[in-house]
Amino acid sequence: MYYDKDAARGAEATFLWFAEEVGELAAALRNGTDEELQAEFADVLAWLVTLANIKNVDLNQALSRKYGSGCPGCGHLICQCPDSEKP
Amino acid sequence: MYYDKDAARGAEATFLWFAEEVGELAAALRNGTDEELQAEFADVLAWLVTLANIKNVDLNQALSRKYGSGCPGCGHLICQCPDSEKP
Repeated sequence: MYYDKDAARGAEATFLWFAEEVGELAAALRNGTDEELQAEFADVLAWLVTLANIKNVDLNQALSRKYGSGCPGCGHLICQCPDSEKP
Repeated sequence: MYYDKDAARGAEATFLWFAEEVGELAAALRNGTDEELQAEFADVLAWLVTLANIKNVDLNQALSRKYGSGCPGCGHLICQCPDSEKP
């Protein structure tokens, strides 16, 4: 939807937009309506996907590699790591 | 995979973990290997999904509502907003 503009902008400038949306998500978590919260989650995800596209990272593949076989710590699909590992 | 721990931790504490991964993504964008970059994208996405789960936000639905009909600014599937709107 935005690829041409995104590619021209570059990863550094795109990260700033992404970070701005992360800040807006924080604000919505603090005191947003359900609708605002949904919209901010959508924006953060959209900018994350944008950034991944620019860097030629396939998010599905990245997620599958890291978490596709279960928790990277303990290997279980329902994590059984001690709480000290991921409180 | 992590729901029980995540729900017990709560949204505020989970946002801190998410933010930490955003920082690691920034570092990997700056000078990470392709593999590190992939792993950090996966981590940021995983924590974003975690946070959405805790807040009962369906990310697919949120994304579809905001962007399912094209760019929210101009309504086109390939954005045609003037550059001043989203540089």
